[in-house]
Parts: sequence; C-alpha cells; structure tokens
Amino acid sequence: MIKVGIVGGTGYTGVELLRLLANHPQAEVKIITSRAEENVPVAHLFPNLRGHYDLAFSAPDADTLGECDVVFFATPHGVAQAMMPELMSRGTRVVDLSADFRIKDAALWSKWYGKEHGCPQLIGEAVYGLPELNRHLIADAQLVACPGCYPTATQLGFIPLLENNLVDPSRLIANAASGTSGAGRQASIDALLSESSDSFKAYASAGHRHLPEIEQGLRSVLNKDAGPLSLTFVPHLLPIVRGIHATLYATLRGNAGDLQALYEERYANEPFVDVLPAGSHPQTRSVKSSNMCRIAVCQPQQRDTVVVMSVIDNLTKGASGQAIQNMNIMFGFDETLGLNSPALLP
Amino acid sequence: MIKVGIVGGTGYTGVELLRLLANHPQAEVKIITSRAEENVPVAHLFPNLRGHYDLAFSAPDADTLGECDVVFFATPHGVAQAMMPELMSRGTRVVDLSADFRIKDAALWSKWYGKEHGCPQLIGEAVYGLPELNRHLIADAQLVACPGCYPTATQLGFIPLLENNLVDPSRLIANAASGTSGAGRQASIDALLSESSDSFKAYASAGHRHLPEIEQGLRSVLNKDAGPLSLTFVPHLLPIVRGIHATLYATLRGNAGDLQALYEERYANEPFVDVLPAGSHPQTRSVKSSNMCRIAVCQPQQRDTVVVMSVIDNLTKGASGQAIQNMNIMFGFDETLGLNSPALLP
Amino acid sequence: MIKVGIVGGTGYTGVELLRLLANHPQAEVKIITSRAEENVPVAHLFPNLRGHYDLAFSAPDADTLGECDVVFFATPHGVAQAMMPELMSRGTRVVDLSADFRIKDAALWSKWYGKEHGCPQLIGEAVYGLPELNRHLIADAQLVACPGCYPTATQLGFIPLLENNLVDPSRLIANAASGTSGAGRQASIDALLSESSDSFKAYASAGHRHLPEIEQGLRSVLNKDAGPLSLTFVPHLLPIVRGIHATLYATLRGNAGDLQALYEERYANEPFVDVLPAGSHPQTRSVKSSNMCRIAVCQPQQRDTVVVMSVIDNLTKGASGQAIQNMNIMFGFDETLGLNSPALLP
Amino acid sequence: MIKVGIVGGTGYTGVELLRLLANHPQAEVKIITSRAEENVPVAHLFPNLRGHYDLAFSAPDADTLGECDVVFFATPHGVAQAMMPELMSRGTRVVDLSADFRIKDAALWSKWYGKEHGCPQLIGEAVYGLPELNRHLIADAQLVACPGCYPTATQLGFIPLLENNLVDPSRLIANAASGTSGAGRQASIDALLSESSDSFKAYASAGHRHLPEIEQGLRSVLNKDAGPLSLTFVPHLLPIVRGIHATLYATLRGNAGDLQALYEERYANEPFVDVLPAGSHPQTRSVKSSNMCRIAVCQPQQRDTVVVMSVIDNLTKGASGQAIQNMNIMFGFDETLGLNSPALLP
Repeated sequence: MIKVGIVGGTGYTGVELLRLLANHPQAEVKIITSRAEENVPVAHLFPNLRGHYDLAFSAPDADTLGECDVVFFATPHGVAQAMMPELMSRGTRVVDLSADFRIKDAALWSKWYGKEHGCPQLIGEAVYGLPELNRHLIADAQLVACPGCYPTATQLGFIPLLENNLVDPSRLIANAASGTSGAGRQASIDALLSESSDSFKAYASAGHRHLPEIEQGLRSVLNKDAGPLSLTFVPHLLPIVRGIHATLYATLRGNAGDLQALYEERYANEPFVDVLPAGSHPQTRSVKSSNMCRIAVCQPQQRDTVVVMSVIDNLTKGASGQAIQNMNIMFGFDETLGLNSPALLP
Repeated sequence: MIKVGIVGGTGYTGVELLRLLANHPQAEVKIITSRAEENVPVAHLFPNLRGHYDLAFSAPDADTLGECDVVFFATPHGVAQAMMPELMSRGTRVVDLSADFRIKDAALWSKWYGKEHGCPQLIGEAVYGLPELNRHLIADAQLVACPGCYPTATQLGFIPLLENNLVDPSRLIANAASGTSGAGRQASIDALLSESSDSFKAYASAGHRHLPEIEQGLRSVLNKDAGPLSLTFVPHLLPIVRGIHATLYATLRGNAGDLQALYEERYANEPFVDVLPAGSHPQTRSVKSSNMCRIAVCQPQQRDTVVVMSVIDNLTKGASGQAIQNMNIMFGFDETLGLNSPALLP
Repeated sequence: MIKVGIVGGTGYTGVELLRLLANHPQAEVKIITSRAEENVPVAHLFPNLRGHYDLAFSAPDADTLGECDVVFFATPHGVAQAMMPELMSRGTRVVDLSADFRIKDAALWSKWYGKEHGCPQLIGEAVYGLPELNRHLIADAQLVACPGCYPTATQLGFIPLLENNLVDPSRLIANAASGTSGAGRQASIDALLSESSDSFKAYASAGHRHLPEIEQGLRSVLNKDAGPLSLTFVPHLLPIVRGIHATLYATLRGNAGDLQALYEERYANEPFVDVLPAGSHPQTRSVKSSNMCRIAVCQPQQRDTVVVMSVIDNLTKGASGQAIQNMNIMFGFDETLGLNSPALLP
Repeated sequence: MIKVGIVGGTGYTGVELLRLLANHPQAEVKIITSRAEENVPVAHLFPNLRGHYDLAFSAPDADTLGECDVVFFATPHGVAQAMMPELMSRGTRVVDLSADFRIKDAALWSKWYGKEHGCPQLIGEAVYGLPELNRHLIADAQLVACPGCYPTATQLGFIPLLENNLVDPSRLIANAASGTSGAGRQASIDALLSESSDSFKAYASAGHRHLPEIEQGLRSVLNKDAGPLSLTFVPHLLPIVRGIHATLYATLRGNAGDLQALYEERYANEPFVDVLPAGSHPQTRSVKSSNMCRIAVCQPQQRDTVVVMSVIDNLTKGASGQAIQNMNIMFGFDETLGLNSPALLP
C-alpha cells in the first residue's frame, strides 16, 4: 500500500482522483490539500464521496507531502513549479496533472502561459506521461508530466499515421470538442447551464495552450525526414459534462494501405486504447468514467484525406485516470489497477 | 409609440424584455441602464439582439428615465425601492419585476428579504400585477409589482379551487421546479453546467422567499369564512434553461363537481391561461418563449386529493412577458400586443 | 464463483447488470439471453463493455439457465411469470427485476397490468427484495421480487415515519421524478431527445403501476391501529438519463420529536441508505451509477407537514444494483460486494 | 393574403412552418396534410400551437392543394417528386424542403438516395433556393428546391473564399455538428434522450447525402480556372435540439488580404447573414428560432489555413425559415416578413 498525497483537491481532477483511488488495492490517499477549504471534509464538498473518505482538506505542507510515496498535483499552472524543487529533493515521486512540465522549451511555455517558467532546471527531468509513447521512461521517472486532455485524444489519434510517415505533417487539422468539466470547477457566467447548455461553439480558435503541447508530442514521433509539422487546432465547447471528441484530418502521401490494420496493430497491446471495427463512430459516452480511448479511422470516398475520430473522458484518460495509470507504471503495479471498470452507459 | 426605459438590463429578465419589445408595435425601448456595462452595446452582451438594437447601456439617471412613459425595473431587490419615490413623483409609470413592492406587509418583507424596506410609504400604491386577478386595478395603476415566477404558476393553479371554497386551505402543497435561468445571470459554482446538468434536487425547502408572496395572493381570493391558509412550498432545480412546472395538491372538502369545467370557465376569457383537455399533462416546452400558462387538473382514483399542474416560461409569463402584459393593460393596448408568438417547439 | 444467467439482456437493466458484475469477485455472467439479438456479442450492442465480456446473446433456454446458480430477469412484465415454474422446480434461485411477483394480490396485479397473472401459485414464494425491510427473508429466498425504482425511493423515505406512527397515513403524497432511462431502451417519439430534453412534465397522474406496489409496501410497516393508508403519487419525467428524486409530504400527528435523529438511527447500519445532515438537499447526481439512496428530512417553518427528499439511481438501487445486493444476501456474500464504487460526480 | 398549403405537416419542419407563419401578415395556412393524422387538429399534435390554429390535418389532395398560391413540401424524399407534375401543371408555385430537386444530376441523386429519380423532367425547372446566391432566379421560379441544413451553413461559410479564388478548392474540409431535430420526428432508439444526451459522436463519415449537394453548390461559385473541387464532410450529432455549427477549413493560395473585410462586404446587404466582429465565435444559441446565419472567420497564427465558423438554426435558416424567405422573394414581399424576431436567448 503506497501513500498518496494530492495537492489542490477541490477541482474536478481532484475529486476524480479520489473517486478512482477509493478502491485502489495498492494506494491510499493520506493527504489532500486546499488552502480555501482547510479542515473541510472532502465528503462535504463532494457528496458522492460520503462513506468513502474520512479525510479533510489540509493546508499544503512540504514536510507531510514529503512523507508520501507519490504526490499528484491537481492545481492550476504555476503551483507545481513552485513546490517541485523541495519535493524532488526529498526523493518524492510526483505526477503533475497541470501543464507546468509538459513543454520542453521554457521560452515556449512562457509565451503560451504568460509568465516566466518557475522551475526551468527540472523540465529536463520530467517525463511526458503518455504511456503509449513513453512507458519505459515513466517506469523510472521521478517526475511525470501528465498530458492534457486534448493532447491525449489528439496524439493517440495521429500517432500511427505519423510514425509510419503516411501523411503530410504540415497540414494536420484537429477539430476537437470538450465537455464543460474541462473548464474546471470555478464560478463563471460563460459556464453556467443557462449559458452553455443547448448550445455549441468554438473557442480559442486563434490559439489554445494545448497547441504547442500537441505539436511537440507529434513531432517526437515523426521520421527524421518527414519535414515540418503544423497543426490547426480548433477546440469547441460541448453541452455535456464529460468527454472529448477529436476529429482529425490529414492528407495521405500516397496509397496508405490498410489503415484499419495499421491502427489495430499499433494499439494491440495497449490496455487503454481500443480501435473500433471499420465503419464505427466512437461516442463520448462509451468512455464516460473510464480510462479508455476509443478510436476509429476512415478514408471517405477513398479520397486522399484520412479522418480519425478519437474519444476519451477528459477527467479520466484525459487527466486523473491517466495520472493513476502513470502511478501504476512507476510503482510496478499492474497498469490497469483501479482503472478497469466499464464506462457508464447509459 | 410609448417610450420605454429599463433599469438593470444585463440579466435574463432584461434581455427577455428586449427580445419581446423588439417588435412591439406600440413601444420603443429608449433607455436601458447598467453601471457595470455602461456604454457597451446591448447587442455585444446579447448576440441574439444583433441587428435589432443600436442601443448601449447607460448609467441609471432619474432625469432621462423620467422622460419615459413607462420604466421597467429588472433589478435585484432593493434597487427599485431606492429609486421609486423620485420616479413616482415625476408621474412616470413603473412596472417593477423585482420583489420590492409585492408584499403588502413591510415587516414580512423585511423578515424574508433580510433588510428594512426602503420605501414603505409606496407599498400601498403598488398593484399586484397578476392580470387574471387585478386587471382593472392594473389599468389605472402608476406602480405595478409584477409577480414572481413561482407565484404566477402557483396562484393561477390554485385560484379556481380557492375562489370556490372547494379545498381545505390549511393543507396546500406546491411542489415546483424551475429552470436555471430563474437563478439569474451571475457567476456561481452551483449553477455551472458541470454541476447542475444531468441532476435534480430540491432547494430552500426550509423556506423560499416566494412563500409569503404566494400565501398573500392565495389569501386574497379566499372566501371570508374559509379559515386559515397554509402552504408547503418546495422548489426544485431543473436541468433546463427556461420553464416552471408547479404540481399542486389540495384536499377536497367534499364532492368537487366537475373540476375540468370549473377551470375552463374560470379562464375562458383569459388570453394567457390555457386549460388543457382532461387527462393532459402540460409540459414546460409547450410554453417556452411564450407568455402562456397551461394548466391541467385531475383527481387521481377519485380520491379526495386534487392535483393541478401548471406550467409557464419563468422569463416570460413568470417575468418579462407578464410585465409587458401589464404595460399593455396600463396603456390601453390590446393585452396580447407583442406577446402572440407561439411557443418554440421543438 | 457463482454462475449467473440474465434473461432479457438488451435493455438498460441488462447492461447495468453487466456493468456491475464485470468486476464482481464472486459472480460470473455465463448466459445472457435475447431472442432479437441472438449471437450478437453484448459488446457490439453496448460499446462500454468492449474488452469486458466475450459473451454473446443467446436464445433463452431453461436447461442452460437451470445450470446457473442465480438467474436475473431483466424482462418486461409477463416473461418471468411464464418461465418461473420450470426454473423454480430445478432449484435455481431467481431475482426478478420485473413487476411480475411484487404484488401479493393477483387480482390487483391483473387490474394494473391489464392481464391475468401467469403464475399465481408462486406469488406466495416471492420475497419482496427491499433489504432494508426484508434482509432475513431474502437470505433464504429462492425467488426475490426486486422492487421498482419509484417504490424503492418512496418506501425508504416514508418508512421511518410510518413505522413510528408519526404521520397520518391517509394523506401521503409522493411527488417523484425520473430520468428517461426509466422508460427503457425502446424506440418512441416521446422519449426522443428532441421531445423530452429541455422540458419537464408529469405523466400518469391518474394512476401509475407503481402505486399499488408502494401502497402495499407502506402498509406492511404500519402499526396495527394506524388506520387506512392512501397515497397520491404523481411521477414526472426529468430531462436526464439516470436518477429518481422523490419529494414526500406527510401530515404529522403531533410533536414529531427529532426527525433527523429518527432517520439517522433507522438507517445507521444500512450500507446503502445515507441520511444527509439536517438542512441538506440530496441531488440525483450524488448517487449516479451507485447503489446508494440518500435521504434528507425537514419540517418547513415547524408547521405540521414533514417533507422527505429521497434520491436513487433508478438503474442501480432502483433496479440492477439492488438486484445484486439481493444476490449478495442470498449467497451469503458481503452485501456490498461489487457495489462499493463512489457515484460519478461531476 | 396568399393561401398556403403544407404537404407532410407532422414533422419538425412542418411545425416550424406553422410556428413562423402563425403571424405572417401576408400568408395564411389553409391546408396541411398528413395521411397518418388525418382529421387530427394540428394543435393536438403540437401543443405550442393551441390558440393559434383551428386547422386539422387532411389527406393530401391535388385539387385542394392546387387552389393554394404556394405549397410547401415538408416530406421525406420521394414524395415531392411524385406529386410535382400535377401541381406544376396547375401553375401552383412550390417550395420543396426535401432533397428531391436540389441535385441537378439525376444519376447522382439516384446514387445517393438509393432509387430512381421520380421526376427528372422537372429538375431543370427547379431553382436552388439559397437567396444569397440565387435571389433573382428565385423571384421568378415556380419550383424552388430549398437547401439542406448542412449545405446552407457550409455554403454560406465557404462562398466568399471560393468566389474570390483565395483557397485551394481540392482540399476543403467541413466539420459540422447538428442538433437532434435534424434527424426528424420519428421513433428510433439512437435518438432517444437516454442514448444521445450527454454524448457526442460523428456519423456518416463515409459519406452523407448532403455532400453532393454542397459540392454542387460550391462548384457553382468557383472561377472557371479554379481546378477541381473536393470536400471532406464529417457531420456530428450534438446533444441539443436545434442548431448547426459548421467549422470549415481551407488552404489559402497566398496572401489572403483582409478576410474580415471580405466577409463583411460580401454579406453587407444580406438580411440573414451576420458577420461577427474579428475574434468572435458564433454560438448556435445566438440563432435559435431565428432565420439568421452568423459567421466568423479567422486565420490561426497567420498560417495558411483559414477557419470559418458558421451557425444556423437547422429548422429555421436550415429549413422552414429559409422556405418562407424564398416564399417572400417569390411573391414580392419584404424578404424578412414573418422572420424578424430575435433569437431566443437564453
């Protein structure tokens, strides 16, 4: 039984960590921090946890967090950067769900996040926690930067095409849509049910912070001579709570062969990537509450544009579930421990 | 063409007034106020109004408002009380959508609204703007206190029973449910789509501010010897934007006779109350965007409990539509002017 | 590991049984029947089950079902009645999720379900599977009639009041609302998203089939001299998928004492009934996907009407979860086995 | 006052025609047909129309329809083809909301709709009813083929780019999403609220019937030497009732100049196309119930992919509203008659 600490537990990734860890056979949450809700029982804020946790929120404290085997950061960007040197120096292993250590270029991070990076010396230590790419590095990592939600769905969709040099990397398009839980648990007018239900819109079309993260990840799987990579990424807001759907478009370089077989082979041994039969369309509800990514690939009218559809639950495979998957790998547990419940349907 | 002013136009009753008045043949909005959004075009805040209004929000000013023929208050409680004496002294006619002048007992108002009433001397002037009860008084009123949303649906449902002394007034129950727009256009965590969609709950079961308003209204139609009136009122929050559904229960005093005929006769000449055929169940979407109240009455298993179901659009018949209906009556227009579009379905 | 058979697996209670049993440590689904989908893999119909089941639907067959330790009926009414004699004679234990054996009076059953009861001789054998009332009888039962969804929420809410003779049983009111999954997985216009979303309505106010079941259950806990019991039950349709909310009203006979303590004591040892702190309002999402019933009780303005609010997930505690709870009791397992995941929130 | 007939009035385009025509000052619905609902009052099927229409459905009959000034077909494909010769020979003017006469190539129509075209001789007569392209032809047409919903949103978004030869027509992408009302008012499992709410998916990615219609329309505005045109079109199903959002991608041929000005100029005189300010994102609710199309254009990171976002209400500008706009043009009325209400928001 390993001891788990969670920094910043009052948001949706916090409660999702608690939900998933409630029955994890090898991990126990010992600390969950929040300055604003100090001493409030977690089950008071999140009634679904009544009967599952006796824990109350506490103020963050490096000493007590340092006694944990692993600490999850479920915080806004900037927080993990400030606390990381001390935790790392104690030997604590960390899974950071925020964007603080995802981008390898500190200047690029600063450009998109609007401030200086607070801990550039540890960026090199961080392993990008997409198990389907970096499983072996994750196993030995002290610091794992857990991917964003859009980046997870988008990279898993594009990887087989790019690894095999089948498409023009300079004309990639990701049309993605997310449920409102992606915007977090914070008061706002735009995210009111009265404003965002029964409606649909794009946002951040001029540039979303996940763009550099996705481009960095996709470049990492390109062949050397594949040429420059450029992605047009347009996120949209869905009137649902959970779920990301990415519809990906790429231009084939020539005869692509059997794309269905390509995807099935690439992900044959992945416990959390499910390639659907040819002709399928994944729906977000088929992964709700689960750590699964379901993918379908097609080539409409046999023209030269390939379309990939990829769905995840943004709070699970897109955040807290993937964080636990990383923890399982880091501690040598079965990778699916605590993550093998079927999605909730209907 | 009368000149209309709106005080406090950035909320949902404000935009609903603008939507309904956009094509009113006898009224033109000249002023709409907001301190927070001063100089911002209304069509910038409410994109549905693009092309319909050139107006921008202005700071509230008694001089310019005083030039209007009628001023609507679409403000939180307390605001109308402060501005009313000056406007009234200029002879301006006012329709107040807030709760400021609905309750005749200033002490009772204070108890439920948690502060001293700011203008007790004008309470007596105010006519309670439920046209189905007070049409003739409204016609001559200078100040109309427009009923709340729950009170409108609940009173219209109970009135025929109480006017005819058919039920025990001491055991009335109103189980009501409202869409989220009833909570207004203000940032909050509880009203996020992520929190309130795909869920249902009661709230304020210990006592909602609309309770004294409803009880006052129902008492006003009781026969003299009917005995004391007591209502149990439990509101619920629906995961929809617009709509109120009230399910009303009362104990019959004896053989009630033909309740269907009673309701049909009571509302035969009412343009905005529609009694559905026996066996019907009104649905909130059947009145969405319209000023109609639809009602059905039944007596399950011919036992002694009568059940009435009443639906309105909380922003229309429950607020801004009824306010315009009052305006039409005050100025001698056809009562349905600007209010005769069918509900939006589907 | 016991062997489980499911008759009628293509509906929502069927897929919910499969979801909950996927990781049950003591039960394995061996057979799932459907004539219409014979030979179709269950994971084809329900994509959330991909990777969790290799099973395909088969035609119902008494021989193979008879080899199971327990058979669940997740069928429309009438089916279980037809197959029950043969299964019972083989000694197979049965949990019937349908209404076939809930009502003890065959004539009353016929009146509400519109046909002759097909197996009146076994009605006496059936134990009504509400563990909070009948735990010891369930342990030894061969045939358990699993309660309906509305009856579960309503009975659990009223039981403490009626057991203690605190309210007038002749004036009970249950105002209840259900998500659309309660209507089952069958094509209809009324249940289209285009028809039932963004709306709310009552239905079956003249009489719903769950009324006699609820009244029978409530009568069973009444004191001998409590007098006749009569319930007014009005169900409503919520624009959500899962969840039942019952708002219950009863007239107190006198000083009721500490209702909060009464409820807390009554359910202190119940693993699946959670009495919320005074002043709370249970929300349906707090039990989504879980077997929990959450209850709050209040007495508005200290008047003589008590209000109880009770929420369950209609597919879990209202059907398949409760069925598994019954199975756990019948086979001597820990009652919470396979049922201890927190609800999904947000 | 012209006389209007509607063939096939029980679907969503039928009730939307009735809603919009209820207050049209120059048109009166005299006949509405349905074999299945013969003699049923329209207000019985559509409760929002209570008080607005005394009309009942009648069986379709060429004689009585022939007495109308204009007949709308709100029917599944195939029906208008069968009745068209007789109506046309009587001189009746027709607006066909179905797909029967939209595609100029009868063989192409047959390929996508799976049967022989029933009236190829009249295809040449039909004017494609997109007023922003064909206003003058519509004015004189006897038969107008009203565009589909996806084609309307998509064409209005692409037209300025293609007319000005700014993009490569061989690599167009339309990622579109529709509310469920687009699937019509017919019983199905997939369109149940229980199945389609709280979820999102693509469908028909291998080829949707609107693809050839869109490609035909886009080709019609291309410069002669623009080269071949090819569109990848992927529709998605939104968990909302009304609304289409099209996100369009095209590769710029070179320096595109001021795209914002281009769009504003192109649509400056169009009453039902609203180009939003630079940086905006149109939301479907901003056009709900209205005939408006709102469009925004952007060029992310100044790279060579242009993104256009276009929203309409699929039942209004995407069907019945556009049909009435066509009628207004055909009869010389003000084009906005009956169509100038603001969208419903919130």
